[in-house]
Amino acid sequence: MRKLDRYLPILDWGRRYNRSALSNDVIAAVIVTIMLIPQSLAYALLAGLPPQAGIYASIVPIMLYALFGTSRALAVGPVAVVSLLTASAVGQVAEQGAAGYAVAALTLAFLSGAFLVLLGVLRLGFFANFLSHPVISGFITASGLLIAVSQIKHLLGISAHGHTLPEMLSAIFSQLNETNWITVFLGVTATAFLFWVRGRLRPLLVRFGAPKLLADILTKAGPVMAVLATTVAVWAFGLDAHGVGIVGDVPQGLPPFTFPSLDPELLQTLLVPAILISVIGFVESVSVAQTLAAKKRESIDPDQELIGLGAANLGAAFSGGFPVTGGFARSVVNFDAGAETPAAGIFTALGLAVAAVALTPLVYYLPLATLAATIIVAVLSLVDLSILKKTWAYSRADFASVAATIFLTLGLGVEIGVASGVAISLLLHLYKTSRPHVAEVGLVPGTQHFRNIHRHAVETDPALLALRVDESLYFVNARFLEDLIRSRLQEGPEIRNVVLMFSAVNEVDFSALESLESINERLKDMGVGLHLSEVKGPVMDRLEKSHLIENLNGRVFLSQYGAWIALARHSEPSAAEAQRR
Amino acid sequence: MRKLDRYLPILDWGRRYNRSALSNDVIAAVIVTIMLIPQSLAYALLAGLPPQAGIYASIVPIMLYALFGTSRALAVGPVAVVSLLTASAVGQVAEQGAAGYAVAALTLAFLSGAFLVLLGVLRLGFFANFLSHPVISGFITASGLLIAVSQIKHLLGISAHGHTLPEMLSAIFSQLNETNWITVFLGVTATAFLFWVRGRLRPLLVRFGAPKLLADILTKAGPVMAVLATTVAVWAFGLDAHGVGIVGDVPQGLPPFTFPSLDPELLQTLLVPAILISVIGFVESVSVAQTLAAKKRESIDPDQELIGLGAANLGAAFSGGFPVTGGFARSVVNFDAGAETPAAGIFTALGLAVAAVALTPLVYYLPLATLAATIIVAVLSLVDLSILKKTWAYSRADFASVAATIFLTLGLGVEIGVASGVAISLLLHLYKTSRPHVAEVGLVPGTQHFRNIHRHAVETDPALLALRVDESLYFVNARFLEDLIRSRLQEGPEIRNVVLMFSAVNEVDFSALESLESINERLKDMGVGLHLSEVKGPVMDRLEKSHLIENLNGRVFLSQYGAWIALARHSEPSAAEAQRR
Repeated sequence: MRKLDRYLPILDWGRRYNRSALSNDVIAAVIVTIMLIPQSLAYALLAGLPPQAGIYASIVPIMLYALFGTSRALAVGPVAVVSLLTASAVGQVAEQGAAGYAVAALTLAFLSGAFLVLLGVLRLGFFANFLSHPVISGFITASGLLIAVSQIKHLLGISAHGHTLPEMLSAIFSQLNETNWITVFLGVTATAFLFWVRGRLRPLLVRFGAPKLLADILTKAGPVMAVLATTVAVWAFGLDAHGVGIVGDVPQGLPPFTFPSLDPELLQTLLVPAILISVIGFVESVSVAQTLAAKKRESIDPDQELIGLGAANLGAAFSGGFPVTGGFARSVVNFDAGAETPAAGIFTALGLAVAAVALTPLVYYLPLATLAATIIVAVLSLVDLSILKKTWAYSRADFASVAATIFLTLGLGVEIGVASGVAISLLLHLYKTSRPHVAEVGLVPGTQHFRNIHRHAVETDPALLALRVDESLYFVNARFLEDLIRSRLQEGPEIRNVVLMFSAVNEVDFSALESLESINERLKDMGVGLHLSEVKGPVMDRLEKSHLIENLNGRVFLSQYGAWIALARHSEPSAAEAQRR
Repeated sequence: MRKLDRYLPILDWGRRYNRSALSNDVIAAVIVTIMLIPQSLAYALLAGLPPQAGIYASIVPIMLYALFGTSRALAVGPVAVVSLLTASAVGQVAEQGAAGYAVAALTLAFLSGAFLVLLGVLRLGFFANFLSHPVISGFITASGLLIAVSQIKHLLGISAHGHTLPEMLSAIFSQLNETNWITVFLGVTATAFLFWVRGRLRPLLVRFGAPKLLADILTKAGPVMAVLATTVAVWAFGLDAHGVGIVGDVPQGLPPFTFPSLDPELLQTLLVPAILISVIGFVESVSVAQTLAAKKRESIDPDQELIGLGAANLGAAFSGGFPVTGGFARSVVNFDAGAETPAAGIFTALGLAVAAVALTPLVYYLPLATLAATIIVAVLSLVDLSILKKTWAYSRADFASVAATIFLTLGLGVEIGVASGVAISLLLHLYKTSRPHVAEVGLVPGTQHFRNIHRHAVETDPALLALRVDESLYFVNARFLEDLIRSRLQEGPEIRNVVLMFSAVNEVDFSALESLESINERLKDMGVGLHLSEVKGPVMDRLEKSHLIENLNGRVFLSQYGAWIALARHSEPSAAEAQRR
């Protein structure tokens, strides 16, 4: 029973559902639905799909997430970055508008869903940790810029394609002469209005005495107002006849039952993009869910989140949608509007279903420029170049990861960008561990502590070389220690004992073990003792399975202080000793 | 001047060259030349090239290595594993025997040479450390098996192709009915003879009173004897007319001046194989050179070795050769025969040049089966399955790397095999560090030391949570600590202070910094102090560049003992305290 609760969180919160939660959830759902209608149409446009796909992608997926997800505030559906990734992946296998395009998008959702569920069942959520914060920040910032630039064509009323910044910019410049000035007027007005609503409307309303809740709703409804005003303008003045691009016919009705393709070649081509979309969507979603849960002192289960998001994507694949994930903006709105349980998501889905059945004829005259404006305003809030400054100040390696991710995403596209970011951050980490910090240590007088001889005033003994190895020993740095000890012994021929202080060695793998065995052999030949100190439990357990300890030309000490007591001459060299040198 | 010495080691040893070194080097060169003639022909055969390519690949490359290399004993030329890799890479772009095949091999040598020189100039030798010992051992063993099986066709006198074990075996079985029994007789006799020479001849000769040096030379000359005997047999009985495969016409003369192709498509296809060949060749070569140098208490410079091997490969590309590296067997022979300086290599090259000019007509009747026998006997000594047993006993992760490398190399070919081995060993390492060991520690009574409360009898205070983090904190495990502290605080509501003991934390990257900041914020909200202890110098330097330390809801202690003195209640809870609970 408990196990079932874990896989179906609805069994837990559903039992305790009451009237007060119901009314809070319904209010939140109304606000989110109003916000989602234009957003869903816009993200479908961004993904290169017909507008209704955006609505469909918000209905069944939201319901499935409500059944399987663990976050109480997360709102699932199409989001900007994932839509961009979808356009980039599907664009490789089909022309936008061609028959295969929509099926490829379904297939992509199917593959991501299957991959996420698989990771969830295997409890492999840690996989997402390979995306470092700097890489994610850099990627989101670069994607936001790419998306904003990709929408400029709709503001100008031209058609320009491309998946990278240079491609997009050159396509726009080459077609500038086809600009439709009525579209520009509508689009720029809508963009300016939305920026104004976002930044200024709420304080203004509050200053004029509007209640906070009303001010909130009016601010959230900004995109809907822009949609209504520009749609009416196009209809009243017949602007579509003057070249203003409009949404046009959107089929009325509930989401259709659809099937992804099972063509092996298509599946193979889309597999890597699907993994990328899954991981990026998951990371974005989990960080939103964790932030919101922490505010209410709740927690989420990342492995169960994989199953929730996986189910949502599988749902999208079978109901005419495309890849979805938990969105930042809509989840915050849902949270702020007072959503208490995932039931708010179910009510939102019902609201969108009503919209799909009843409201689609109303968006016939909706200008594409208005949708582009809502996208631009939404994604520019994702752009945060301060991460460059912050990482530069803290660590050049992290800066390099961010800068490479931003630069490559803009220049070579989203997939190469994020893949390079991950590869670079992993390689830099391995590079750092390949040249570990090794400190020569001495005793801090009057204590039992040992510190770096170059940073502290400590007692040492020239015949005793005490090295604190500041890294786990594994294949990438196995030879490093061997070389270091050889060169230290060449400099100090008076050394009779070497103590390796293992307080910071968290692992010794087989390559490093062979290296230690070869160090031991070499020192034995030279008549120098090799000792270990402060070896941790798990490392010692492992070493005892090898022959290193039994063949060790020295001892294993519990503490470095113990090694010092046993091996060092504690007084200054005597007069006789000093003379002999 | 000193800098020039470093890049041209010949300037160093050349100045001190004398008559005794000269005579030792010449003797070594004679022995190595005798050994190399059949070996060079055989490895050319293995690489799918005409036999003279093997001789050419041993002349100019050896001379260039003598100028630029740092090892005094390393003998450079075609080796078994690299020849196999060459056959596999070149086989993807041209049919064996076709015009493009030899040019592709030159191009492969050119690319590896350029890559090695580049790594050397950038001093990036550490790159080779990404190949762990288990992966190298597994790869060499699997390659040895593959090579031995690939030669069976020559012993049977059939033609069978394939790059993986299943391909080779099925090709051999399907053509078993075409077996040439005279070839089988020659090949099996030669193989048995060579195994006998290798294992039994030397002890026998010594027992019958032969001087050691003579016994050595006779043993080394085993392949030459097999070559002479079988060549004479083919010539005398006209066996080539009965279907015995022979070497045939080999052009007489010095190595020709050749050019690699600069076709961009070919370069792109061969780039990854070239990198693989370079890295594997470098690793094999450096480990041989280091082993031999250590025996004479000398040392080599791995970064300069890259330049030496790179120059050798560039030389091969322009003189009709194919990729080369330092070989284990020939280097050991060179060393044992008393080579004192790289001049021995130059004399060997001269010896081979004489062979190329004068001796090639003599190998016309040499049976391919004899060359196959020399290869089989040489490579089976590389096969060492004991690495499976050793790693199994020590660490399952290392075992998994070896097993996967062997299995995938045999089943899917050398390139996929070694690439998967590297990827698996890196991923397993990252996986291990993603779930670090974190020990809750307490004071060992009567000392200033802290140990795991589950392994040792230690003093603790229920209001003080002291955690020793046994891993560097970086993006792969950044969230782990956050989750761990949250769950520990849920279990222990009486905790008032958390001390993170950083003695084993060797790095805190930007992602982990953000995670620590968020832990700090959360604990501050809960009224719990967060303290750090035993932070190492380099880590502290880094943290001081951030706002973590100034915003820390607690203190940084030099030692865990200092934190204990300041924060713990040192006596048992008083009666009043006990009552209150």
